[in-house]
Amino acid sequence: MTYKLVLLRHGQSEWNEKNLFTGWVDVALTEKGRAEATRGGELMKERDILPDIVHTSLQRRAINTANLALDAADRHWIPVKRNWRLNERHYGALQGKDKTQTLETYGEEQFMTWRRSYDIAPPVLDDNDEFSQANDPRYADIENAPRTECLKDVLERMLPYWESDIKEDLKAGKTVLVAAHGNSLRALVKNLEGISDEDIAGLNIPTGIPLYYELDDNFTPVGPGEYLDPEAAKDAIKAVANQGKK
Amino acid sequence: MTYKLVLLRHGQSEWNEKNLFTGWVDVALTEKGRAEATRGGELMKERDILPDIVHTSLQRRAINTANLALDAADRHWIPVKRNWRLNERHYGALQGKDKTQTLETYGEEQFMTWRRSYDIAPPVLDDNDEFSQANDPRYADIENAPRTECLKDVLERMLPYWESDIKEDLKAGKTVLVAAHGNSLRALVKNLEGISDEDIAGLNIPTGIPLYYELDDNFTPVGPGEYLDPEAAKDAIKAVANQGKK
Repeated sequence: MTYKLVLLRHGQSEWNEKNLFTGWVDVALTEKGRAEATRGGELMKERDILPDIVHTSLQRRAINTANLALDAADRHWIPVKRNWRLNERHYGALQGKDKTQTLETYGEEQFMTWRRSYDIAPPVLDDNDEFSQANDPRYADIENAPRTECLKDVLERMLPYWESDIKEDLKAGKTVLVAAHGNSLRALVKNLEGISDEDIAGLNIPTGIPLYYELDDNFTPVGPGEYLDPEAAKDAIKAVANQGKK
Repeated sequence: MTYKLVLLRHGQSEWNEKNLFTGWVDVALTEKGRAEATRGGELMKERDILPDIVHTSLQRRAINTANLALDAADRHWIPVKRNWRLNERHYGALQGKDKTQTLETYGEEQFMTWRRSYDIAPPVLDDNDEFSQANDPRYADIENAPRTECLKDVLERMLPYWESDIKEDLKAGKTVLVAAHGNSLRALVKNLEGISDEDIAGLNIPTGIPLYYELDDNFTPVGPGEYLDPEAAKDAIKAVANQGKK
């Protein structure tokens, strides 16, 4: 018997559309993003890959994506768990900044370092900044909540939740859906597939297309992750890689 | 300190609109129902009555109502628990039947007995009926899942969940939202307020308007339940009472 895991990156958000760094800012999905989420659920239903439990971040765009996808898959009634450890990478002082403008101001090298280096985080976001989450009640109980993160930070805060909750649900034989974000899912896939610190820079996960893994007893994928709409995934991966470029 | 409990009946469903008995049939909200749910969330936000946890039934119309209301209240990120014990009353062989036609066929006495008597259930729904939930995976683990219910049955299957889960969350100091159905909420209110088997027939709960209770240490309301939009509640209660009448 293999374990069944489905990863789903939220559909287009208002700030994806505006080309702004979002991070922990709690923006909503666009109409396109809502349609992507619904389509994601339809793909799961068509393939009969039906989640028994869903894990989400604490962010609206992932939560709404999960709600819409599960509704479309007729699995709206399954148990739900939410945890900040599945949140998007905290983008520090870049939160709320325009991606293209940031590229022009700082140059491609610095821009790509912030976007894709494994262990270099952007400058810390000030607690008084309008885009800070320092006073958000949903994070009030977290000790030392992030003020900026690199992908390594995301992996380190995501892994404890993978171990304590997601793996436990997989072990119980449940098909698990994780509805989350570009970087929390990249961290998860890095860990799953044993991707190196260097190679993870080249991995882009498209929005709204369920990524399906079968895992063996050691939680190692028995084959490559499978996008439930492979053609759309191929196109979308290219688009993500070109974000911020002219 | 008092415990804070908010009850929310789902907004208009496709079958409310069509005037059909719904019960456990898993119909969706109408656009009007979705707007009601969002308005319910706005009312909670305006009054600063903000749920820390939500309990829903396993039915789409209550789940979507909770999702929309919490989104509007900026509380989409709170923990979620779902349980079939919060489901609408199973309407037995009446599920899928037109209310007005049922009234004409069986006469007002029989009709009102099925709708409002405390302990007389409609005929059992056959497992092979198109509106049966006998093969629905979400109910597969329930021993002796209902095939019809009277309000007494609803109360008896709802109470264990009230004791085991809802009361425990209230005791922990959480503001609890219960997003459910006309009859599961009537059962809950009957128990809370100590309403008699006779008088419960006269209690109608309007859709989409949060009903707020403060409870003392013994889980007794310190005052009457308060609709967060009292004027709208008054009008809606009249409308519910007249359902099925010409």
